[in-house]
Parts: sequence; structure tokens; C-alpha cells
Amino acid sequence: MAASSSFCSQRTLPLRTPSHSHSKLSSRHSLVRLPASGSYSYPSPYLYSESNNYCSGTRAAKIGLKASATPAAPVMDQTSSSSPAVSTVVEVDLGDRSYPIYIGSGLLDQPQLLQRHVHGKQVLVVTNTTIAPLYLDKTIWALTDRNPNVKVESVILPDGEQYKNMETLMKVFDKAIESRMDRRCTFVALGGGVIGDMCGYAAASYLRGVNFIQIPTTVMAQVDSSVGGKTGINHRLGKNLIGAFYQPQCVLVDIDTLNTLPDRELASGLAEVIKYGLIRDAEFFEWQEKNMQALMARDSRAFTYAIKCSCENKAQVVSLDELESGLRATLNLGHTFGHAIETGFGYGQWLHGEAVAAGMVMAVDMSRRLGWIDDSLVKRVLNILQQAKLPTAPPESMTVDMFKSVMAVDKKVADGLLRLILLKGPLGSCVFTGEYDRQALDDTLRAFCKS
Amino acid sequence: MAASSSFCSQRTLPLRTPSHSHSKLSSRHSLVRLPASGSYSYPSPYLYSESNNYCSGTRAAKIGLKASATPAAPVMDQTSSSSPAVSTVVEVDLGDRSYPIYIGSGLLDQPQLLQRHVHGKQVLVVTNTTIAPLYLDKTIWALTDRNPNVKVESVILPDGEQYKNMETLMKVFDKAIESRMDRRCTFVALGGGVIGDMCGYAAASYLRGVNFIQIPTTVMAQVDSSVGGKTGINHRLGKNLIGAFYQPQCVLVDIDTLNTLPDRELASGLAEVIKYGLIRDAEFFEWQEKNMQALMARDSRAFTYAIKCSCENKAQVVSLDELESGLRATLNLGHTFGHAIETGFGYGQWLHGEAVAAGMVMAVDMSRRLGWIDDSLVKRVLNILQQAKLPTAPPESMTVDMFKSVMAVDKKVADGLLRLILLKGPLGSCVFTGEYDRQALDDTLRAFCKS
Repeated sequence: MAASSSFCSQRTLPLRTPSHSHSKLSSRHSLVRLPASGSYSYPSPYLYSESNNYCSGTRAAKIGLKASATPAAPVMDQTSSSSPAVSTVVEVDLGDRSYPIYIGSGLLDQPQLLQRHVHGKQVLVVTNTTIAPLYLDKTIWALTDRNPNVKVESVILPDGEQYKNMETLMKVFDKAIESRMDRRCTFVALGGGVIGDMCGYAAASYLRGVNFIQIPTTVMAQVDSSVGGKTGINHRLGKNLIGAFYQPQCVLVDIDTLNTLPDRELASGLAEVIKYGLIRDAEFFEWQEKNMQALMARDSRAFTYAIKCSCENKAQVVSLDELESGLRATLNLGHTFGHAIETGFGYGQWLHGEAVAAGMVMAVDMSRRLGWIDDSLVKRVLNILQQAKLPTAPPESMTVDMFKSVMAVDKKVADGLLRLILLKGPLGSCVFTGEYDRQALDDTLRAFCKS
Repeated sequence: MAASSSFCSQRTLPLRTPSHSHSKLSSRHSLVRLPASGSYSYPSPYLYSESNNYCSGTRAAKIGLKASATPAAPVMDQTSSSSPAVSTVVEVDLGDRSYPIYIGSGLLDQPQLLQRHVHGKQVLVVTNTTIAPLYLDKTIWALTDRNPNVKVESVILPDGEQYKNMETLMKVFDKAIESRMDRRCTFVALGGGVIGDMCGYAAASYLRGVNFIQIPTTVMAQVDSSVGGKTGINHRLGKNLIGAFYQPQCVLVDIDTLNTLPDRELASGLAEVIKYGLIRDAEFFEWQEKNMQALMARDSRAFTYAIKCSCENKAQVVSLDELESGLRATLNLGHTFGHAIETGFGYGQWLHGEAVAAGMVMAVDMSRRLGWIDDSLVKRVLNILQQAKLPTAPPESMTVDMFKSVMAVDKKVADGLLRLILLKGPLGSCVFTGEYDRQALDDTLRAFCKS
């Protein structure tokens, strides 16, 4: 097993050894596209390849990741749900702000993994009322086991996007200051995206910046929001308007935490997983087409692999464009339509990933109208979203005007022109561009809205 | 004039040409000290030199600054208060976050200087109720003159340290969001240290970071708080506990704004000017000894030079230690004692610089008791502070216990040990250390307190 040997020589981690054999996956041929003027485009990361068998070491090298300990892509057998835990590491390469993402089952049972990233003697765990009863004690144990010198405090915030505001954030500062946390302390975010965003922004701001660790407990946070350093809070007039780019010391993804995640939340996170395949990773998309049932059944090996590939894709984009000068915007496939749904339909009605799923269908529809993709790809997108039990159209109450009014104030409007992420070319290729026929946008909106 | 030629070849600025001749200043010999274990120490930046004449180009090279357009040190003639404006530039060298500090008279009368650092089409000027009637119109004119495409909004905050909090900060976000400022907008801080700190933190956080320009209008802000990227707000339990390290696009110091500064505020800022001489710049201290009367008379050439030297010193320290890992702490000479005075005596009773002045006297007294400096230096410190009409002892109501209780929770306490900035060696040399005889600290506190 060349891949595992290579893994061991690169990193000496107290993780269980990956135990699986090479998989068989079909590798779709895809060609490098030349970037269009004024827009960003991705070729599939898998350049022309004759091989149908691959191992992860090769794959990591292909997509240009630095030191990545990656298990081979497993072909899921529905009888293997009791398979041994799989652990893997994805490095986010940001110079002196680089950090590892640990992914696997039972990682919170390995105190030394977490403790190596706690530098000072004071830790503040930030979590919420839903997660605290489930994982706070375990996290505190992992921080303190055989480590009597560390002092752990915790602050338990109310659960929900509506609490992602300055008032709640101040509770984190209050607790840190009352506990006399100094500059060498570490903040730990234990929860979903809201907790990660708030804890990260608090860590960025407390004493002008302290250490920060992410322990995401939802698929959405594990594959998206915990990676890349975007932190912040909402303002009453808009989402995520106040915040910081601030990178953690590490991200620890214990996929066992998904055991307590509601089905709808699980599916919502899968919308972002599917997105990575569509915008830049054809091979990963094809793997998902074959393994969506295993993911829906919460198979731990399937999830470890899906989260790894998602994090690799996000890490590479973030490494190339940390501050979102342009390239990083491609991660927002379906998000402009989706944001209009969230705003128009009312926050909390649909989960973020549900809105993104419907938004991706609309972006794909528009790409097809522009003649940029084949009909067959539209069908594949609809099929995989249906397998993941995600919506494939906006709520019936959404109107063309509701879409247009929200899209007019999107952050991606530049000089009055709405730039969109659209698929173009073979599977795994997209563009971020304002250069498209307006008629196609109108036609898409009318096709998905009754009025 | 070699120095001026060198200046012109380095920078092509629409600034008036410096017009003064080489000055005569005595150059005190000082020797390089070896750093003590576990502490930081500075030699004087002027290493052994036989020359009594120097020009600024040489001086800049000596203290290791990058591209510095510096006028020669002027010997102030009390009849020269109507001398032509002097303009100069200090570069803060922070890699891709480097920026210039422009210093001179009439800089707000040169719109192109400010406009070159405004990248987008939207500007938000953040100022307060005291400064707005004096300089807001002029600043808006400087931003918009022959520049019709730029849209300027302003937010006028209440004046005072007691408003440096989250509630006031939200007013800045509200205005920015209501004005639909996008990521390419620029925030301009027009005012003293409180405005600079709040506007800077708002700029760091708005949409996760937008452009930011400092126009400091107090000596304190011009020589200290506007340089180095420390931004933030107070928490009810402590000063500057929430914030960010965030560097501006440029700092524009129009010394004409000092014309409206109250005498006490002016003197307060001079405490920090004197500090730079004591901790790392013997030659600058000696210049101050000769020119304090010109500074007190608000001579524009003297002030330009004093601000330039102060900014050069601060810029160099910040370049070496942007995130205050240790070296930067030396800028806090007198601040630990001073902070105790501010806290114990009640904020707002004494200005920050007044408390720092008394604190420096106490740090100097302690350094003498440790045998680290000569008696003569103590006298020189007392003499220059008296010339600047600054306090040379804490308020009579301060007790030993008041000092000790505040100093026990100082940010510079590490493992229970209070580290202090103390003078050691010849003029211009200091150490940041926890390795000192506790008796000396007790003796100093008793000498300055009645109980």
C-alpha cells in the first residue's frame, strides 16, 4: 500500500492507520480550458488520465495539495458501517498561517491530537445549548486528560442564526475577560457554522487576536464554513457584514459527531459537497453519484472521504485566494439564487444548503440556456440532489421580482453588473463572470417562478 | 544638499520641497549593549560617530529605515514660526502591508495626496463632535476636489474615551451599511486616538476588512496611536481588550491641525515624543532638550521634525515586531505606572500622556535605584518633562497599594512576574525584563506615595 506508507513517512500522527484497499473508480476524461477574459474558470483538477485506478497520494499530487495524508477513495459497501475509523489530514497552505484539518472517526477520543494545538494554559470553549449536552464534557476531557495544567472555561450560547449578532458575541468577550484569559489562551469553537463564525471572530478580536481551534459538528461546517478563515456576525441589515479573515490553529472533524445530526441538516451540508464536484472536481462528483446512498446512510468511511475531498478543494481555492479577490467567489455556485431564496422566503424556513441546492439547479439551468453545458449534466445534477433529498426548485412563493430585488444588492455586483458563477464546459468546470446574455437569466427566473 | 537630492530621487511627491540647511547637533557617543538573557535591550541607534553634523539621509540609514524622505534636523529659531511648511515621509516597512506617513504643514490643502490612497468610489469619514466643525469640510473638500466620482459620507461620534465602546462602534457599521459601502470603500479616521482606534477596528471588521486612512489631529495620535496598526475598543472591564492589528493605507499628519489643540493635549502628546528619545534615540532626546521651547510654541518646523523622528522610531519597532511578541513592549516605558495612575485616579482626571510622564519618572527612578543609569540622566528626564509642563510625580492620592493592585493584572505579567520597561546603560538604551530586584520597585513606590 504505497499511499499509506507515504502517509506515514510524511506525518507521524497518533491516528489509527487507514485500513482499506485501492478502489476502482471510473475516471472521466476532462480537458483543460483556457480562462476566458475577465472571468475565472476551472479545468477539472484531473487532467487527461488513462487510469481507472488511483490512490489518494496520486490524487493529492494531481490537485496540487501540499502534504496531504489521504486514504484511497473507498467504494462503499452498505455492510461496512462498522468498519474501523479512518483518519486523514488535509493541509491548508497559507504560508505562516497554514494549518491542518484532521478528519476521522473518534478524534475527540484522542486527547493528544487536540492538546498539541493548545499553546497556552487557558482554553475557552464556545458552544451552544444544543451541542453542549452532547459533546462539551467530551471536549473538556480531551483538553484536560493527562494535562492538569490547562484551565478550561466554557460559554454556552443560544442556538440559531438569529443569535449570530454583536449582543451574543459580547457574551464570549465577557466570559474571556472575567476568566482573565491572556494573549496565549485558545478559543475552541464546538458546534456548527454559527458557532465557528462567532468564536472565530471573537478569537480574532480578543486582545487583538488569540489562538483558535475549530471542532465543527455539522456537515455544513465540516466541509465549508470551518475551512478558509471567514469569521463574523450578522448585522440587522445583512448577513456576515462584520467579521475578519482569521485562520485557526487546526480544524478537528470528528465524524462521530454526525451521529446526532438531524437528517435535514445532514442533507443541507451535502449540497456544498455536491457543489465542489460541480465547480472543480469531476472525479469527486462521479464518486458521489456512486456513493450518495452510503453518505445518506452516514457510512463513516464514505463521510471521511467526502469531507476530505471537500476540504481539499476548498483548501486549494483558499490558498490561491485567501481574501476573496475573485477566484474564491466560485465557491458560491448557487449561492446568489440561494441567498435570494433565504431572504425572500424568510430565514429559518429553509436551511442554507437547501436554498443552495435549489440555487445550483437554477445556475445549472441558466448555464444550459447559455449553451455552456450539455443537457445530460443538468439531469445528473437533478438526480444527485434528489438522491440527497434536497430541493431542486425554489419555494413556490418566490417571484421573479423577489429574486431580482435581492440579487441587485448582492456582494458580487460590480459597477452595476451582477457577476454569477456558472458551469461552462465539461463536468467540473465553471466561470465567475458578468459576461452573459441577460435573457438567459430572465428565462431561468421565469422558468422557476409562477409570477 | 545631498539629502534632499536623495529624497527627490526616491519619491516623487507633490509636496513642497524642504527648505532648510544642515543643522548642528551634538552627537552623543553611545555603545552597543549585548542583550541580557530573557530581556530586550536597545543600543542607541546612533552607533559610535565622530560627526557632529548630520543630515537626515544618513540618519535614516543609521536607524535602518527603508525609504525615508527626511528633512535635516532644524535648530529652531524662535523667530522662525512663519517659516515655510516642511513636508516629509516616513515609510512603515511591513511587507505587503507597508504604508507611508506624510508629515507637514498644509497637507489637507493638497487633495491629490489624500486621493491617491482612496481606491474605490465610496469614502466614510469617521470623526467626532469636536473635530467635525473644525476639519470635516476641509477633509471632504480634499477628498472630492476635481474628483466628482467619489461619494463621501461621514459619521460624527461623541468625543471622549468613554465612548470608545461597542455601542459607538455600531454607529460606524450602521452608517456604512445604510450607505451601501462595498468592499472597495475607504474609511477615513479624522481625529485623535479614540477616533483612530475605533475607525481602524471598524475598517478591519467591515465586510472583513476595507481600506483605511488615518488623519490624526492630536500630537498623541500623530506620534503614537496612528502608527503601528493597533486598533480597538474598550470593554467595561478594561481598555483596548477588543480589537485588531490592522494597518492603514497611509497616515496623513497635517500639523496645522495642532493649531486648534488645547495646551494640555499638546503637552500630553509630547510625553510620548520624549519616551522615544529615552528608550532608543539619544540624539533625538538631545535635540528635544535644545528645542522644547520651540515645540511648546508650536513651531511647525520643530513639530514636523519631532513627529518625523517619533514616527521613524515607532515604525522601526513595529516593523520588527508587528504583533507585539516582545520588542514592541518597550514602547510602553512609563505606561505600567501610568496605567495604574489612570485607573487609580479615575480615567479623565489626567490625560494619558500626563500619566505616562509621571510613570516615566517612576521607571527612571527605579532604574537608578537598580544602578542601571546615572543620576545625571534622572535630572535630564525631570528637566525636559518640566519644560513640557508635564507632571513629574503621581497624584498625591495614589497609594502603594493602588499601584500594586493595578500592576498585578497588567498585560505584561507572565507567570506571575511583572515585566517592566526600564532604562539601562547610556541614554537611549532600555530593557524589557522581569529580572530586577523587587526591593527597588517597592522603594520607588514608597518614594512617590505618601501611604
